[in-house]
Amino acid sequence: MNENFSNRITKLFNTQYPIVQAGMVWTSGWKLASAVSNAGALGLIGSGSMYPDVLKLHIQKCKAATTKPFGVNIPLLYPDIEQHIQTVIDENIKIVFTSAGNPKTWTSILKQHRITVVHVVSSSVFAKKAEDAGCDAVVAEGFEAGGHNGREETTTMILVPAVKEAIKIPVIAAGGIATGKQMLAAMVLGAEGVQMGTRFVCSNEASNHINYKQALVNSKEGDTMLSIKKIVPVRLLKNKFFETIAAAEARGATKEELAEILGHGRAKRGMLEGDLDEGELEIGEVSALIKDIKPAAEIVKEVWNDFNEAIKNPFI
Amino acid sequence: MNENFSNRITKLFNTQYPIVQAGMVWTSGWKLASAVSNAGALGLIGSGSMYPDVLKLHIQKCKAATTKPFGVNIPLLYPDIEQHIQTVIDENIKIVFTSAGNPKTWTSILKQHRITVVHVVSSSVFAKKAEDAGCDAVVAEGFEAGGHNGREETTTMILVPAVKEAIKIPVIAAGGIATGKQMLAAMVLGAEGVQMGTRFVCSNEASNHINYKQALVNSKEGDTMLSIKKIVPVRLLKNKFFETIAAAEARGATKEELAEILGHGRAKRGMLEGDLDEGELEIGEVSALIKDIKPAAEIVKEVWNDFNEAIKNPFI
Repeated sequence: MNENFSNRITKLFNTQYPIVQAGMVWTSGWKLASAVSNAGALGLIGSGSMYPDVLKLHIQKCKAATTKPFGVNIPLLYPDIEQHIQTVIDENIKIVFTSAGNPKTWTSILKQHRITVVHVVSSSVFAKKAEDAGCDAVVAEGFEAGGHNGREETTTMILVPAVKEAIKIPVIAAGGIATGKQMLAAMVLGAEGVQMGTRFVCSNEASNHINYKQALVNSKEGDTMLSIKKIVPVRLLKNKFFETIAAAEARGATKEELAEILGHGRAKRGMLEGDLDEGELEIGEVSALIKDIKPAAEIVKEVWNDFNEAIKNPFI
Repeated sequence: MNENFSNRITKLFNTQYPIVQAGMVWTSGWKLASAVSNAGALGLIGSGSMYPDVLKLHIQKCKAATTKPFGVNIPLLYPDIEQHIQTVIDENIKIVFTSAGNPKTWTSILKQHRITVVHVVSSSVFAKKAEDAGCDAVVAEGFEAGGHNGREETTTMILVPAVKEAIKIPVIAAGGIATGKQMLAAMVLGAEGVQMGTRFVCSNEASNHINYKQALVNSKEGDTMLSIKKIVPVRLLKNKFFETIAAAEARGATKEELAEILGHGRAKRGMLEGDLDEGELEIGEVSALIKDIKPAAEIVKEVWNDFNEAIKNPFI
């Protein structure tokens, strides 16, 4: 196991490995983020499902749980975005991942506070905008990724080389990565690091309901689908709620009708409360390859070990 | 450039490189297949758009143009399937790729004539069926691939390791592959060879209309989309015809209404006759990365060279 790996991503985050745990709603609080950071990768607190005071608490607990670098993911369409930005500044957070919105508005403010800013993109056009806005790196997230996703449906296999070609700042690949071999594949395509979401949902430290974790472990190829495209595309595990949406879409339901079916609090209901029928279960296609729930540190170790083995023996 | 590469796929086909040119309607006749085979990869005649006597003629011309191994792709839902099967047997074809249908029916008949049979699949369940039917290898074709595609929408990044895990026969990866780096990524994921379609459409020897080739060269990320899902999912370049279908789908058009819009001969109109507005233009997402039209032999050489460079320097 190579413990002396170094590239632009490990230098940017000051981590041992170029592995990022995605900031995920109802999933990645201080427990998961600190466990990942303590294991040598970069843990992210997912602020999208947190009130500002909850985020502050998670940051403080994370600081108490690790001396290693960690970051916060902020969806830029978050209603109380100003408060979240102020919180990360006040708490002296060094790394912020932004997603779902225009990086132009907030990047320069974060940079003024010497915060490393990484923006999540689904196309090379958005990647260029992130670079122009002053971001330090981008996450290029392919169609196979869980949760909210781009409209162009470009997969990791094509997105990573396309983004790599379009910008000079480093690229972190996301979407379809849960193993060391997939990590190596992503890095051969041009990424300098990987972000994994779904793999870390199936960790002991993820704050999701056990029903949801178990459903992921049991899921197979074809069990997830990009859905609710007329509102915002989101990759979901197929369940009763998904089928209701799919049937409405097939009959040509409008955006408004779909929004009414969706209602409020579906993601919390599914992912945190464990309602596998009526909840919204955001997940990536790679769940088909995940067979166990284990400590986050073991996930980091296994992926890194397998990545290094794959470098030595790429064709086994 | 490594000219002594050998694995189960090069041995199975008796080719120099584990690279296959996909059999494609209105695209891969004897000219393309023989050019690819002469360059050391495996060329395939795409019989899906050929009458039986046309297929016979293409096979005979291909034999005259190359002494190297080549094969024929037969979509199993082809209306005159018995005649196509008889033609490949009569013409002493050694390699047949089957697609779009159940491999159980025809594999044993082909195997009785000592034909190597490879079946194209979009899931590990179908891969297992192909193995059980006696196939010698499978092509695992991801969501990003052009033309007809699976319903589960599993991308190459996940499909290749999933298929690899499910079967013992070798896996050829397809979908999203047009460069040596993508080839290496696919092989790190578990493939022992790659099949490229879209890249070879942009070759001098492809029989498509130049308008269509040029449209691919000009296309960008997000310019293709999986369409007509209520009938059979097919990845198309976005054009006027695509938009008509998309609008009908958005308002909830039935399968029958979509079939009426589709009509007959759209693929020929688009790909062979070059009608970029009203034709059906089947193409993969990787078209976004293809910038030139060149001889098929140069494509083979470049991909193989870049693949070998990438093995030496995976992180550049």
